[in-house]
Amino acid sequence: MIKPKETHKKEEFSAEKYIQGVANGDISILGRAITLVESTKAEHQDLAQKILEQSMSMTGKSIRIGITGVPGVGKSTFIEGFGKHITAMGKKVAVLAIDPSSEEGRGSILGDKTRMEKLSKDALAFIRPSPTAGSLGGVARKTRESILLCEAAGYEVILVETVGVGQSETAVHSMVDFFLLLMLAGAGDELQGIKRGIMEMADAIAITKADGDNLNPSKIAVNEYKRGLHLFPSKKNKWIPRVLTCSSYENKGITEIWDTIDSFMNHCITNNHFEENRKKQAQFWLHESIQEQLGSHFYKHPKIKAKLNDLEKAVVNGELSPFVAAQQLLNLFHTS
Amino acid sequence: MIKPKETHKKEEFSAEKYIQGVANGDISILGRAITLVESTKAEHQDLAQKILEQSMSMTGKSIRIGITGVPGVGKSTFIEGFGKHITAMGKKVAVLAIDPSSEEGRGSILGDKTRMEKLSKDALAFIRPSPTAGSLGGVARKTRESILLCEAAGYEVILVETVGVGQSETAVHSMVDFFLLLMLAGAGDELQGIKRGIMEMADAIAITKADGDNLNPSKIAVNEYKRGLHLFPSKKNKWIPRVLTCSSYENKGITEIWDTIDSFMNHCITNNHFEENRKKQAQFWLHESIQEQLGSHFYKHPKIKAKLNDLEKAVVNGELSPFVAAQQLLNLFHTS
Repeated sequence: MIKPKETHKKEEFSAEKYIQGVANGDISILGRAITLVESTKAEHQDLAQKILEQSMSMTGKSIRIGITGVPGVGKSTFIEGFGKHITAMGKKVAVLAIDPSSEEGRGSILGDKTRMEKLSKDALAFIRPSPTAGSLGGVARKTRESILLCEAAGYEVILVETVGVGQSETAVHSMVDFFLLLMLAGAGDELQGIKRGIMEMADAIAITKADGDNLNPSKIAVNEYKRGLHLFPSKKNKWIPRVLTCSSYENKGITEIWDTIDSFMNHCITNNHFEENRKKQAQFWLHESIQEQLGSHFYKHPKIKAKLNDLEKAVVNGELSPFVAAQQLLNLFHTS
Repeated sequence: MIKPKETHKKEEFSAEKYIQGVANGDISILGRAITLVESTKAEHQDLAQKILEQSMSMTGKSIRIGITGVPGVGKSTFIEGFGKHITAMGKKVAVLAIDPSSEEGRGSILGDKTRMEKLSKDALAFIRPSPTAGSLGGVARKTRESILLCEAAGYEVILVETVGVGQSETAVHSMVDFFLLLMLAGAGDELQGIKRGIMEMADAIAITKADGDNLNPSKIAVNEYKRGLHLFPSKKNKWIPRVLTCSSYENKGITEIWDTIDSFMNHCITNNHFEENRKKQAQFWLHESIQEQLGSHFYKHPKIKAKLNDLEKAVVNGELSPFVAAQQLLNLFHTS
């Protein structure tokens, strides 16, 4: 297994060696390539972009699955069981995480790999800890490029994990084919931790820990969510989100969740939505990435930095129209 | 009543005359000031910004209400009845519309004022047709600045109407205090026309045409929506969205909707969310406006125009990572 921190001590490979290694499914080289993608150093970025450019023809052939849920829902346990189910079918699975909150030292979801002990020992599985924190846009780019590298390395299923309380779900939703929301049964306030809008993104909801005393509340929750989901407008791909239960303790429900994803894939490949969605996502990230960098360039400008605070204050206090203030800042930016 | 098309024939007023006229609640000068806000001519924009800057201290004192619903829900009829209810209390009401789709000549919601005949004759009401079409950002700016001008002219309630099928709802939601969703009772597919995410924005849902044979289905719909809404995570302001019915035909339900807005205002002013939300909205529009203009400047650049199509095609076809393509375009932009 790759230990990213040792990378700097190792001799640097050529782009060709990386490309070849990734293409051969060499787990250690894949790990190091992802470390390059995550690095902020200019030379690492250049190398990473070269590797990506040359690997593009080998990407795109996996199923990309986003998995989210609040802390305590049993995400790690679920992913371990789900991952083992996938490798048992002889498929290679990669687990990535998107977690912009980890810079604050809380909410971190992939501090290390020990929480998925069995899966991390599986030769068909690749688990990557959460990238070092940064802006959501930065983390999203890193995750999306890591997906591409894993695909180039032959991983057939990519699980992208997210913590379910922040903005990252929208980002993940824009980079996966299927979005799975894990939920706990409860007295109605189980949703309080889930950010508004996340439920609408779900292609399936799985009620976890549906065993023992929790079995009946779980069944009630399934009906509640089913009734709730039908109130949402139908999705463009015409897929009707499903609500399921699972129990890691009793090892139940995993097969049904995988079968649901299988049905979804058949459904979306048949109606061409799968390809269409992938294309839209690529386009989205192109423009998103342009906007993010234009903004970062603007806000870093010394003249903007010097003036922004005062103008923002005036806007917030209702002394200046936001559009007038924006115009003033843009004039300043373009004349300097 | 102001007829915008005649503006150019009239002598141009000074900024002072506009500011004074708006402050005096002169409906004709207000209309002409909004025409300036909507104009794309640089000299009109300059004048508009001057008027706005000087009027800012008189803004912010209204209740801003967003009203949306698909065509056929009875929006005009509802707004007429609702507006009359407001003027009957002695309050001044302004009706604005946001409708970026009107450039395609369909979905237009405020082609003229005749559809609200009674309200348009009411001395306490000001109805403004939809601004000439443009980008969503442009239309949003025009609408938001029109709100400010109406407030400076003493309007105490501003109704912002939107068509409920496009992106404009998010924009409207970011410029109003209260968001009202009009819905028809029906067999479950009444929601198909409503864009995903809109229901979550609603502070209240009103089932229209709740009379005659439609009365029972409306009652059933109320229960369905109530059950559905409780599945949404609670709002930051802790307001629990209400579901009501109304009938323009039987002149019922309007009072209850106004009372709901009144409760909402009390609730949000008490917990300070009202002010906080207004501040956040102003900040949002400042940065949104900066991003929009940075983007428009970028995409208009001849070198970007020449290259974008090819790179976008490569990205969509999976030959190039979106981030690599974005980087290439940004390098081109910054070196020229």
